[in-house]
Amino acid sequence: MKQKRYLLSEDNIPTHWYNVVADMKNKPMPPLNPGTKEPLKNEDLYPLFAKKLADQELDQENIWIEIPEEVREMYKSYRSTPLVRAYGLEKALGTPAHIYFKNESVSPVGSHKLNSALAQAYYCKEEGVTNITTETGAGQWGAALSYAAKAFDLDLAVYMVKISYQQKPYRRSIMQTYGAQVIASPSMSTKAGRKILTEHPNYMGSLGTAISEAVELAMSTENCKYTLGSVLNHVTLHQTVIGQEAEKQMEMAGEYPDIVIGCFGGGSNFGGISFPFMRHNFTGERNTRFIAAEPASCPKLTRGQFHYDFGDEAGYTPLLPMFTLGHNFAPANIHAGGLRYHGAGVIVSQLLKDNLMEAVDIEQLEAFDAAVLFAEAEGIIPAPESSHAIAATIREAKKCIETGEEKTILFCLSGHGLIDMASYDQYLAGDLVNYSLSDEEIEKNLEEIKDLV
Amino acid sequence: MKQKRYLLSEDNIPTHWYNVVADMKNKPMPPLNPGTKEPLKNEDLYPLFAKKLADQELDQENIWIEIPEEVREMYKSYRSTPLVRAYGLEKALGTPAHIYFKNESVSPVGSHKLNSALAQAYYCKEEGVTNITTETGAGQWGAALSYAAKAFDLDLAVYMVKISYQQKPYRRSIMQTYGAQVIASPSMSTKAGRKILTEHPNYMGSLGTAISEAVELAMSTENCKYTLGSVLNHVTLHQTVIGQEAEKQMEMAGEYPDIVIGCFGGGSNFGGISFPFMRHNFTGERNTRFIAAEPASCPKLTRGQFHYDFGDEAGYTPLLPMFTLGHNFAPANIHAGGLRYHGAGVIVSQLLKDNLMEAVDIEQLEAFDAAVLFAEAEGIIPAPESSHAIAATIREAKKCIETGEEKTILFCLSGHGLIDMASYDQYLAGDLVNYSLSDEEIEKNLEEIKDLV
Repeated sequence: MKQKRYLLSEDNIPTHWYNVVADMKNKPMPPLNPGTKEPLKNEDLYPLFAKKLADQELDQENIWIEIPEEVREMYKSYRSTPLVRAYGLEKALGTPAHIYFKNESVSPVGSHKLNSALAQAYYCKEEGVTNITTETGAGQWGAALSYAAKAFDLDLAVYMVKISYQQKPYRRSIMQTYGAQVIASPSMSTKAGRKILTEHPNYMGSLGTAISEAVELAMSTENCKYTLGSVLNHVTLHQTVIGQEAEKQMEMAGEYPDIVIGCFGGGSNFGGISFPFMRHNFTGERNTRFIAAEPASCPKLTRGQFHYDFGDEAGYTPLLPMFTLGHNFAPANIHAGGLRYHGAGVIVSQLLKDNLMEAVDIEQLEAFDAAVLFAEAEGIIPAPESSHAIAATIREAKKCIETGEEKTILFCLSGHGLIDMASYDQYLAGDLVNYSLSDEEIEKNLEEIKDLV
Repeated sequence: MKQKRYLLSEDNIPTHWYNVVADMKNKPMPPLNPGTKEPLKNEDLYPLFAKKLADQELDQENIWIEIPEEVREMYKSYRSTPLVRAYGLEKALGTPAHIYFKNESVSPVGSHKLNSALAQAYYCKEEGVTNITTETGAGQWGAALSYAAKAFDLDLAVYMVKISYQQKPYRRSIMQTYGAQVIASPSMSTKAGRKILTEHPNYMGSLGTAISEAVELAMSTENCKYTLGSVLNHVTLHQTVIGQEAEKQMEMAGEYPDIVIGCFGGGSNFGGISFPFMRHNFTGERNTRFIAAEPASCPKLTRGQFHYDFGDEAGYTPLLPMFTLGHNFAPANIHAGGLRYHGAGVIVSQLLKDNLMEAVDIEQLEAFDAAVLFAEAEGIIPAPESSHAIAATIREAKKCIETGEEKTILFCLSGHGLIDMASYDQYLAGDLVNYSLSDEEIEKNLEEIKDLV
């Protein structure tokens, strides 16, 4: 079986992050202060985030933002990540499509999350912060930040969504091995957690709840900042190293993608692979399709509403203009824990509203079918999250069989699934199910946010 | 923190394996037919192994053996693996030593084992074999062979040592995801397994027993060959791609190792990293030290005896001249399951006998101390097996603190520990222990083999 990987030399690793907002004709609407309903100013974010991260969050001017030397140095420990021509998958499908994947699973923590974790830890350290907090769904972000915190000598407390804490105990062990403190969320350690546990003692948690807890701890602890792994603009910004590298690597392969696909939780991995290519759509130079692949059980892009909503369950965060299922939406316990979030980042939300990208929803079983086919064909066991991108890729590749088109499809393999083998076990035993979601359920949660702004 | 990785371009991936035996002044003594006690001929091995593998096993003539094009192609999917300057570990230790590691954990299956798995699967396929069997300790070899079998379209049955089957259920899931059949050993599916289970119903297995079962199944199944992941010469031969790449990469770094270290189970990872460097010791050109790091609970190199012994528990294999603890030695249930084997490969045994290399034994807790320090410093959570090499490296690096010497130390990070997080959990909870081994215990097992030849 023919094999082809493309790697960049060290001096071709990106020196800047790409700030897509500066290139967007229709800018995202501003986040609002939940009390005053006034647009947020940079200063409003300073109590919560490191200043430079807050500035990046609201930056609509600078197209290119320089990557600090210390962060670039850490990137060198695993970047560039390989771009791989998926000959095995093409053969298994019998498709004329050319399939490529950007393999972010080779980072020491096993996913793309380290790209932003290192940046966030660095900026916190730089301004003298000693403690940071965060939440984690599947644990990929928590693992990445745990290593980044250790690398930049910060103390870290991670609120881990309880269902993942139980389904993926070894992600907890990984965080602890790097020296982080890990708390199952909802917990009794915060007001937000206690409130939810009082009302729903058996609630297995969600990213929205874990964010509330991490924010609350950061706000009530001295010299402590909050960090997060997706959704916000600055996180997606840091992930654009993925797409920038992929663009150069596709050039090495002599191709340009007709379709770019990423799985979708909050948007950082999707934006990371997509935005550097989308740039060429903005100029009219290219006409690439961009597809976000979300789980059918948490379908904010395909079945949610564009509305101002909170980023967390308790309503601590600013109000964000986004595609949302409502901040009280409690997603089913699917194994792609990293995709169980009620809202989409504001950039992606605006792009989708403007029809500059597409979204598809994938059932849990379709994702695992795709995962096992990919593992057999390419040797890498993908994370359940990434498997949604693989499933969407397979759909497009199968269309090419029908039409005979040799389309070039690029997807982001955001992480490996070696810590998710319990879910593969269940799948192989036939114990996994799809989760249907009625229109009524969706309506109910959206009803609750209609008067927020 | 400064970071430096060295990678080779595709055309610098080795084209040949290095057959150290052809360069050895004192050749290993021949394996013997257990019935006749006559030296084994190539034909004697043909029923069990693919012919070309059998020929490689006994080849004492050819220094360089060409890697088949199909195998090289598959190597390209993950090779070259990075050579990393461990600045983080150096800093954490405060040593003047220059520490490098060859990172074999980046292979899709997470360890070096794939280097030989692909070769063995290829040769079996080439001669028309349809089914293969093997044993696995920690599951690293089983996972690698499962993917290789899938890549070359072979059916695979894996006997997995029962203690690992229970301690590491997710390695089983990985093998099953690649489509392999996995059986806990000892099992009731073979005569060898039934005999042991009758005598010791609660026996948790050993590599020696699992080998007996895999050999028995191969011999009694049509068009079926046996394969294995370490100990034998041809396996170590395939692993020499590691050391060959490392030599070129050390050259890129402008250094040559004073000390080369590998963990030691049967010898394939140790030989893989060492032999290409040892070549220059043979010519007198260099004077590198080679250190095999074995677990204190399974100390064949440091406390065993050089003697003819069986490679398996039931006595199905040829008699091999090796450092051994006796083929009935039942190792303690340490977490480095890949190192729980009673004997050493014949090449390494001869080299140790001739003082061309050294061996040290490492207690379980020292290995985990080293593992966690390495994870914090370098971001990669190492396999418990590889941690023995890290511990030995740390010992040498600490000596350099005392002497002030800037020695260059190279070790092989044979695999990551992401499937071994249960053992990290136990370590972090303070539940792991060392296993002491009395001289009487060792004597008893050696007594049983003294009349074999």
